[in-house]
Amino acid sequence: MEYFIISIDYAGTLVFAVSGALAGMKRKFDVFGVFIMALVTAIGGGTLRDLLIGATPVAWMLTPRYVYLVMVGVGLTYLFKRHVRKLRRSMFLFDTIGIALYTILGLQKALAFGLGPMVAIMLGVVSATFGGVIRDVLSGEVPLIFRKEIYASACLVGGILFVLIDSWFGTVAGMITAILVVFLIRFFAVRNKWSLSFGNDVES
Amino acid sequence: MEYFIISIDYAGTLVFAVSGALAGMKRKFDVFGVFIMALVTAIGGGTLRDLLIGATPVAWMLTPRYVYLVMVGVGLTYLFKRHVRKLRRSMFLFDTIGIALYTILGLQKALAFGLGPMVAIMLGVVSATFGGVIRDVLSGEVPLIFRKEIYASACLVGGILFVLIDSWFGTVAGMITAILVVFLIRFFAVRNKWSLSFGNDVES
Amino acid sequence: MEYFIISIDYAGTLVFAVSGALAGMKRKFDVFGVFIMALVTAIGGGTLRDLLIGATPVAWMLTPRYVYLVMVGVGLTYLFKRHVRKLRRSMFLFDTIGIALYTILGLQKALAFGLGPMVAIMLGVVSATFGGVIRDVLSGEVPLIFRKEIYASACLVGGILFVLIDSWFGTVAGMITAILVVFLIRFFAVRNKWSLSFGNDVES
Repeated sequence: MEYFIISIDYAGTLVFAVSGALAGMKRKFDVFGVFIMALVTAIGGGTLRDLLIGATPVAWMLTPRYVYLVMVGVGLTYLFKRHVRKLRRSMFLFDTIGIALYTILGLQKALAFGLGPMVAIMLGVVSATFGGVIRDVLSGEVPLIFRKEIYASACLVGGILFVLIDSWFGTVAGMITAILVVFLIRFFAVRNKWSLSFGNDVES
Repeated sequence: MEYFIISIDYAGTLVFAVSGALAGMKRKFDVFGVFIMALVTAIGGGTLRDLLIGATPVAWMLTPRYVYLVMVGVGLTYLFKRHVRKLRRSMFLFDTIGIALYTILGLQKALAFGLGPMVAIMLGVVSATFGGVIRDVLSGEVPLIFRKEIYASACLVGGILFVLIDSWFGTVAGMITAILVVFLIRFFAVRNKWSLSFGNDVES
Repeated sequence: MEYFIISIDYAGTLVFAVSGALAGMKRKFDVFGVFIMALVTAIGGGTLRDLLIGATPVAWMLTPRYVYLVMVGVGLTYLFKRHVRKLRRSMFLFDTIGIALYTILGLQKALAFGLGPMVAIMLGVVSATFGGVIRDVLSGEVPLIFRKEIYASACLVGGILFVLIDSWFGTVAGMITAILVVFLIRFFAVRNKWSLSFGNDVES
């Protein structure tokens, strides 16, 4: 289980970084701007969560691993610019499992800091989605997530389910259910004409 | 006095939430976006203040009351969309008393953290006004408060008066004077052609 | 050395404040908005650094000196609006020495909080550049720094050099080298057709 969580965490960070790098390249940012976009998309949500609960220095600063992953993500995006867009299907998979996991890890951290379940669920959703919000604000766009609710709603439902199932059937059952439900909500949202979204936010 | 403060605090939160929800609905955000807009307008200023002075977890996370108030505000705005605009006069009243109170509560908290009076007054103004600034940034607009100074200026004058009177005649006298003065400044600003503003920020 | 650092720190704060005030006046903000723009440009980067490492209350709040310097900067900008633009050359000098120093002071603070060198260098660059990023976001513009990398790149190179030289030849040697190198990078960037930039960010 431990290994599963870490793998998803890293894969999610990488996918979010690629998504941010693509957004920066689309806006014709230079390499510094592209890196910042990748960084805030990948770690912005968790950073905001840590600031709000007072868990400082924020998590990604205590180990260089996440910054390296973001660098790798930026490098890969530059190298395989054309192919990345063809990988949408795999990215969608990792991204969906990623946001489900981030929601759960975020809310667990909030609970560990003594916060109530409702606030914890909100912080879980913030962890999973606000990287994309900061990315959009920095690129001068109105956050897409405010217009296409399905992304955040999936996290919200996943977070609520996790809290309920966690206290009745244990963490593993809660995690699997939440990830499955987030995946199904997004999958059917895509099927029913919401366009394929990936990378920490709804994108057409 | 205690009850008066709490009532104003709640009424102010509700009015700020309605203002934020209206801004979100005007931008055609979905229900998630509207809720976030209501939340940041109502609690954004206090959150920034708490982050800057290191009072974490930030205040609204320690009790679910404020989040519920924001939810009620969003619900009411959806239900009475058309009527809300007719309530401008009452909203103006609560909003004005609200920003005066938030300025005072914000600066008292800063003083309690050992900060000097000038920085405390600045943090009071931040508490009262930066919810609206964050709301504007998130909706892709240049913060209105930067263009129509009267809203922030009223808080500034109220904050300075409170600090002066508080140390000479006590907290209650300072509070009443500050609230009265903020109200009068805004009232005459509206009379003299500045358009009726409400909801945590100057809106036409 | 102590006096040198303090002088540069104050001169840098003043120059950044002037740069922010100019940006606010260009957008026709009122005096309150102009002051906020000056303030975030001058202290925004250090504030974000302090929040991320948990050094709260953030540095500028513990002494009113920086706020007064910003006020002086705003006053000077209003008084000498026309002449300020002619002072570009002097401002460029102080601004360049300023960002080099802020990078170093920022990374030293991060190291003192037990963070690793890579994260410390990132925080140094954030200290020197994110005041300008926040200023741009608040004025509804895409941060210029994301498009013209030379400003941040100079800080990055300066930060890396400082860490290397500091551990081999001492702090003073590291500081002088870093400031010199940042200056030379920007100087040659300007010579080679990148337009003269000043004030905490690349501006045409």
